[in-house]
Amino acid sequence: MSDATIPVELTDEAAALDAADELRAKRDAFTLDDTVYLDGNSLGALPRAVPARLADVVAREWGQLRIRSWEESGWWTAPERIGDRVGRIVGAAPGQVVVGDSTSVNVFKAVVAAVRIAQERGAHRDQIVVDEATFPTDGYIAESAARMTGCTVRAVAAGDVPTAVGPRTAVALVNHVDYRTGRLHDLPGTTAAVHAAGALAVWDLCHSAGALPVGLDAHGVDLAVGCTYKYLNGGPGAPAYLYVARDHQPRFDSPLPGWNSHADPFGMDTAYTPADGAVRGRVGTPDILSMLALEAALEVWDDVPIEAVRAKSLALTDFFLRCVERYVPAGRVRSVTPAAHAERGSQVALRCADAGPAMAELVRRGVVGDFRRPDVLRFGFTPLYTGFAEVERAARVLADVLDEVG
Amino acid sequence: MSDATIPVELTDEAAALDAADELRAKRDAFTLDDTVYLDGNSLGALPRAVPARLADVVAREWGQLRIRSWEESGWWTAPERIGDRVGRIVGAAPGQVVVGDSTSVNVFKAVVAAVRIAQERGAHRDQIVVDEATFPTDGYIAESAARMTGCTVRAVAAGDVPTAVGPRTAVALVNHVDYRTGRLHDLPGTTAAVHAAGALAVWDLCHSAGALPVGLDAHGVDLAVGCTYKYLNGGPGAPAYLYVARDHQPRFDSPLPGWNSHADPFGMDTAYTPADGAVRGRVGTPDILSMLALEAALEVWDDVPIEAVRAKSLALTDFFLRCVERYVPAGRVRSVTPAAHAERGSQVALRCADAGPAMAELVRRGVVGDFRRPDVLRFGFTPLYTGFAEVERAARVLADVLDEVG
Repeated sequence: MSDATIPVELTDEAAALDAADELRAKRDAFTLDDTVYLDGNSLGALPRAVPARLADVVAREWGQLRIRSWEESGWWTAPERIGDRVGRIVGAAPGQVVVGDSTSVNVFKAVVAAVRIAQERGAHRDQIVVDEATFPTDGYIAESAARMTGCTVRAVAAGDVPTAVGPRTAVALVNHVDYRTGRLHDLPGTTAAVHAAGALAVWDLCHSAGALPVGLDAHGVDLAVGCTYKYLNGGPGAPAYLYVARDHQPRFDSPLPGWNSHADPFGMDTAYTPADGAVRGRVGTPDILSMLALEAALEVWDDVPIEAVRAKSLALTDFFLRCVERYVPAGRVRSVTPAAHAERGSQVALRCADAGPAMAELVRRGVVGDFRRPDVLRFGFTPLYTGFAEVERAARVLADVLDEVG
Repeated sequence: MSDATIPVELTDEAAALDAADELRAKRDAFTLDDTVYLDGNSLGALPRAVPARLADVVAREWGQLRIRSWEESGWWTAPERIGDRVGRIVGAAPGQVVVGDSTSVNVFKAVVAAVRIAQERGAHRDQIVVDEATFPTDGYIAESAARMTGCTVRAVAAGDVPTAVGPRTAVALVNHVDYRTGRLHDLPGTTAAVHAAGALAVWDLCHSAGALPVGLDAHGVDLAVGCTYKYLNGGPGAPAYLYVARDHQPRFDSPLPGWNSHADPFGMDTAYTPADGAVRGRVGTPDILSMLALEAALEVWDDVPIEAVRAKSLALTDFFLRCVERYVPAGRVRSVTPAAHAERGSQVALRCADAGPAMAELVRRGVVGDFRRPDVLRFGFTPLYTGFAEVERAARVLADVLDEVG
């Protein structure tokens, strides 16, 4: 679509939406350029606070204070301190979240620990229910957890979890937002149904944390995990997190009882005595450089109400869908992201022929989303730094590209 | 000891040793000051190459290239690429080491996988032998691995492992160097004895990698783990590593089969098919900032023969022990580090009354070691940056401090 044929009303509308955007100023907290970056659901953009903070951690805390920094620079307590920062964003009161390890490792801790708690209630609980469209690692790890705890895995559609759980269910492991389709699953309702069956609910928040209100405490979630490098902008491979609801903490029995989770880690006891609280979810020595980069990245959130993020996220995805509908010939793409707000995360996934080459060309033209095999164009919308004019441009470039690639 | 009473011959000898030190120039590759830093066995000093490299990773690779860096900046293959660098230092040919996760998590992978391999040889192999003086986390994790694989743990002195292993042994998990005493255990002999019993040997190299030749391939070690923040100077909480000997790789059956270990990780299969080779030891998304800081730190090793490191290490610890013997009144301290070179790592542990306050005072006077409860002063000697004059000064300040504290 050439500039001469740009429909004026959508560009005008984008400008009006940007002018009225209460999160608009947050964009300045990130390092961005002319690229329309719609891949923050894969790797968030760089917050401006990170480089200087990390340089100080390296040069002064490591380079000058060296070993003293474990105490003097607060390194030792970073996992729970930063955990509380994440907690605020996902609706967890302090003392329930620790940061560290990868999402996969945290899924293992959460699922095994949840099975053990469930089996205290009844040894016959030997089934782990997972949503069948899960990001693969959760399914692989659930299989391993099942194998190592004498359970079996049953995969069902996330929407069917409430009816699939029963007296043999130990745990249901569900993704809050489907990584491929962007579908938002019903966390409150599903959690309630899992509880009604006497089982525990473990939620994977990778694609919802920082994009919408999660309400872990409010909805009585048992355990949860998530990464911090998507909407939380913590950096490539930034440490993940584990939420263990306060009531479960005394029974949280970790399959990875590393020395950092000991009640007296420097006592060097040969016998393991777990610490109280969220610290029990720690394992080995925390990865300080990545963790403190994450801490600096999270400062962006200090004055951001998650409700405002959600409102803008829905406005962005609504507007993108309208622009696509307007610019792209009917039938050329099909959104697999639900139209209903209650079922939509912060991304739009479009199924189309030639999605692979189309995304490659989009990236060349400065519109970055990602391609998910076999035929999905995935666009993530980060309300903190994505504007409406960018969204309009992305849809316009998409139309051009599909016209040429098709 | 006042300056007026410094024995001239030891300071002269230190100067001569420094002048003849072939690794002397390596000190310039690190950020150091007037502190005598003898805690590199806890957290290595900052290599000068790290700050600029990490700044570029943050500002350009993350900040500008963003998601493209997974491919264009070589992020995705970093765990095995950096693993090969570690491999060169510990005597492993390429393709057998991956970097990632913490030591504790890697102990879990290694021990569980080793049990599974051993039990293919005979289901009756249900015992995990661990050295009783192990760094605690190895013991805790071995207990968890045992519980989850139907095994039991038997703790014996590391020196007794060769006679303790038998037909029921699945795995022996041994620390190459004892973290407290600095005792170097017999890796070749113990590994051979473990093999003779039909079991697998898993070595923890935290306190030997970068301090002395390990020879993983040469001695037929089965699996090994270690951290990278001690003698490898990778930074606080830098990613650990896992070695799986090539012959075992096809049977390496990970208890943490995250998506990064899949044969086709971006195929997003619901079925798990493990990758070939060392990649099979990966789990989740690698922690890029810490990992690339480590990569830069390892450049220091490019032209360093590990034999030269070992020779200097022994010279440093010999000299320190002589200085201590000369300066500190007889009986005031007792070395628990073996005198025999074949049994000594790269640290000296001195038992003495008031070790806690003595170390605090040493640190105040610019001699940094660490205190291990209840009564051990621990001094680590990093041959790449520690000089003999520093060693002499450390012993002298120690004598002064013990005189005052005692």
